[in-house]
Amino acid sequence: MTNSAFDKLDALGKRLEALDHAQSMLFVDEAVNMPSGGGEKRAEAMSVLAGMQHEMATAPEIADWIGAAETEDLDDMQRAALREFRRSYTNATCLSSDFVSRQVNARIRSEQLWRELRPSGDWKGFLPAFEGIVATVREEAQLRADVLGLAPYDAMMEQYDPGNRTADIDPVFADLKTFLKDFVPKALAHQEAKLSARPLKPLNAPFPIDKQKALGLAMMEALGFDFEHGRLDISHHPFCGGVPTDVRMTTRYTTAEFLSSLMGILHETGHGLYEQGLPKAWSHWPLGKARGMAIHESQSLFVEKQIARSPAFWEWAMPHVREHLGADAIAGWALEDILAHVHLIERGLIRVDADEATYPLHVILRYEIEKDLVSGALAARDVPEVWDAKMREYLGLSTIDNPKDGPMQDVHWPGGAIGYFPSYTLGALIAAQQWVAIEKAQPTVEDDLRYGRFVGVNDWRRDNIWSQASRWSTPDLLQRATGEKLNATHFARHLERRYLS
Amino acid sequence: MTNSAFDKLDALGKRLEALDHAQSMLFVDEAVNMPSGGGEKRAEAMSVLAGMQHEMATAPEIADWIGAAETEDLDDMQRAALREFRRSYTNATCLSSDFVSRQVNARIRSEQLWRELRPSGDWKGFLPAFEGIVATVREEAQLRADVLGLAPYDAMMEQYDPGNRTADIDPVFADLKTFLKDFVPKALAHQEAKLSARPLKPLNAPFPIDKQKALGLAMMEALGFDFEHGRLDISHHPFCGGVPTDVRMTTRYTTAEFLSSLMGILHETGHGLYEQGLPKAWSHWPLGKARGMAIHESQSLFVEKQIARSPAFWEWAMPHVREHLGADAIAGWALEDILAHVHLIERGLIRVDADEATYPLHVILRYEIEKDLVSGALAARDVPEVWDAKMREYLGLSTIDNPKDGPMQDVHWPGGAIGYFPSYTLGALIAAQQWVAIEKAQPTVEDDLRYGRFVGVNDWRRDNIWSQASRWSTPDLLQRATGEKLNATHFARHLERRYLS
Repeated sequence: MTNSAFDKLDALGKRLEALDHAQSMLFVDEAVNMPSGGGEKRAEAMSVLAGMQHEMATAPEIADWIGAAETEDLDDMQRAALREFRRSYTNATCLSSDFVSRQVNARIRSEQLWRELRPSGDWKGFLPAFEGIVATVREEAQLRADVLGLAPYDAMMEQYDPGNRTADIDPVFADLKTFLKDFVPKALAHQEAKLSARPLKPLNAPFPIDKQKALGLAMMEALGFDFEHGRLDISHHPFCGGVPTDVRMTTRYTTAEFLSSLMGILHETGHGLYEQGLPKAWSHWPLGKARGMAIHESQSLFVEKQIARSPAFWEWAMPHVREHLGADAIAGWALEDILAHVHLIERGLIRVDADEATYPLHVILRYEIEKDLVSGALAARDVPEVWDAKMREYLGLSTIDNPKDGPMQDVHWPGGAIGYFPSYTLGALIAAQQWVAIEKAQPTVEDDLRYGRFVGVNDWRRDNIWSQASRWSTPDLLQRATGEKLNATHFARHLERRYLS
Repeated sequence: MTNSAFDKLDALGKRLEALDHAQSMLFVDEAVNMPSGGGEKRAEAMSVLAGMQHEMATAPEIADWIGAAETEDLDDMQRAALREFRRSYTNATCLSSDFVSRQVNARIRSEQLWRELRPSGDWKGFLPAFEGIVATVREEAQLRADVLGLAPYDAMMEQYDPGNRTADIDPVFADLKTFLKDFVPKALAHQEAKLSARPLKPLNAPFPIDKQKALGLAMMEALGFDFEHGRLDISHHPFCGGVPTDVRMTTRYTTAEFLSSLMGILHETGHGLYEQGLPKAWSHWPLGKARGMAIHESQSLFVEKQIARSPAFWEWAMPHVREHLGADAIAGWALEDILAHVHLIERGLIRVDADEATYPLHVILRYEIEKDLVSGALAARDVPEVWDAKMREYLGLSTIDNPKDGPMQDVHWPGGAIGYFPSYTLGALIAAQQWVAIEKAQPTVEDDLRYGRFVGVNDWRRDNIWSQASRWSTPDLLQRATGEKLNATHFARHLERRYLS
């Protein structure tokens, strides 16, 4: 039995994987099954397990093992694994434990205050805590920047999407912003004309939950979700969790309509397919994990936006809706009637409620503000004015008297998660780039959707994305898979085709 | 902030509690929710977590902490906690890791072979593995005996019920055996006479599962199960798991009848009430855990046998059965008709299918054989003959040509669990002793059952059993709660009253 430095990392990986497994499943159980009285002890157990994992993952001897392993005779995969061991160790250890404990306190204080003050939109009351968070974030970004040799905001993004740089994203977001500021009013006018010619048909509620569930399961199965390695449950906030060999997806139902739950299921199915498609042999190495937030979001948005809101998909899906929800559910509807529902767009204040056309403007607004907060160009107290000015410019809406639905709407900033927001829109752009790449490789792909054949799109993503796990940085993975750098062109063409025709 | 030796034990307790929590909940999830493909990684995670826990619980420095804490200024509860820290540390460390790894191998080999050969009853094929297990058990018993200063079989029982000694159990089981050998034929004759006068009414199946579930939940709630801190699910093998603040009970249903699931639910409710009644403040100390297997079984058997198979209980329960399962479920039945079902007894080969009158004979048989296997008075290869002779003597049934339903029927021995079997019958005896003690303290208790009032029996058990957790040895807890040593008298009177009247 060898006992190389790489073997030690490998054994450490198995221990960390077991703790990950436990925490993932406890999270799922808490959201899906746990009675409320179990919460206190569960939180205690989760915090102890997270502490153990952090201790184990940041132990000083790991640096020695990584150093020693670099001189060992490794194969290509082991060498790739070693790079990711180093990357994840560096990212986990670049903050001192003194800083981390100050940070945790600032985050807890700020999140609690945010939960308390958000309903009344009390920005003034929240500001001192937010100023604390911004100060901590600047410190964190500088600490990460020093260790990683990156600019501060890039160092923050590095946690979520390795290789993402503002230098690459700025011009793409600038293009996209220019496009969308012009596109959104045109698309809204186009929609208004269409809806006055053919009004939106109301859904024939109620839709019993057991029937919606059967429809959702049938769609998941058709899309390739493996129920030997996963299941669908109910939770208040839908998510995709668990582990790659046992993916736990959730949704929630209302009997008043079926589309929000169904589209939610299809979105999470995209996340689930990615997890199920990760290479099994590397599951205990950082190398074996999904690449990052932008790529993960690209997989869910690919299924939801590129596939499941396309006309071809609905040609196939409408008979299934009738089969599961009953002939009356959408009686007498033509394809245009369902598409009018799934393509409905509108200007709104709330990011999480936004459609695919307006969503990127919400994200770009946050990205611009975040960068200035981290660099110091913007002070925390000035955020509401800047937010309002941008909202008026991008979407023609004002939030100046409504901070609740302005800068107080998301948990990310109160929780100190800066550098995360761009991933959502990067995911949407990457999903559109993937669709174009697949169309090139498989010219019949749109017809495939029309007949409910998803093997081709899955094979392409398995080969080019899922099986690659964390072998490449986010931009490299994108380049290798699609042959192109990140760009807004395909996403813009996608929107034009869908909302202006 | 103090940092006494006791504080170190306290902090260790929190870490072990978190790992316990994770393992308990992963076990529940596996039985209730997990898709089959998740099994391999789950087994890996469970084994790694168990290894971490063992490592953490047996670390050499713990011995120093315990020693140092004994000289510290502790209050009564801390002193009691320290005793249990020592007890649990001693029991966890008395086997060398070399021995444990040999033992694990012997157990895995023997359990696998047993699963393979049990269906065909191939005793000869199984014997070599069983001989290996018996040799390992003898070694284990001697190792434990040396450390604990106990006789070998007592040292094995000490794992499950601290303080249990053959010197105390032998005379009680001898009394019980004498009684039952005479009682069982009388009770069967009495039953035959009753059933020929008033034949058993068939149950009016099918019983829909959702209705059975509603009935079970209503009964659990009436009996005091706290659904803020627990829930009922479905699994193939019913159990009571989870943690005291979040007790996860399971059952399984058949539409062909409702009594087996209902009585199973009531049995597990007894376990669940004990867990929910443990003192919260000690939950991370060994002191705060349930006392052991015999006491745990006494709580489930108390609810199932003493309460839920009593005539008074069924006076209250019958209208609830009608309410939940429909008027036709037991249409025209009198109290005697339902009692005829829940008091049905018969001689059989299989322990797990046995009724309360014959069950102890199955246990005494195993207890006698186990003791002789450990002492060396009996060789593994001679078990089938001895088993057959005892079965013929105790229950008038032969297993000589049927080892599948003889010594190959239980997983305990193939898994190396020796010293566990007596707990089942000790639980039955203790349940009967508790009932008598409660009757003395609360003379109206039988009337309480008649009206579905379970607060009194729960208060008594909370005060005398649940809240005491592991403060006392099993015999001391029994003595303090009931004012009596272990005896078979009350259990025998209970059987006579129920089966001969």
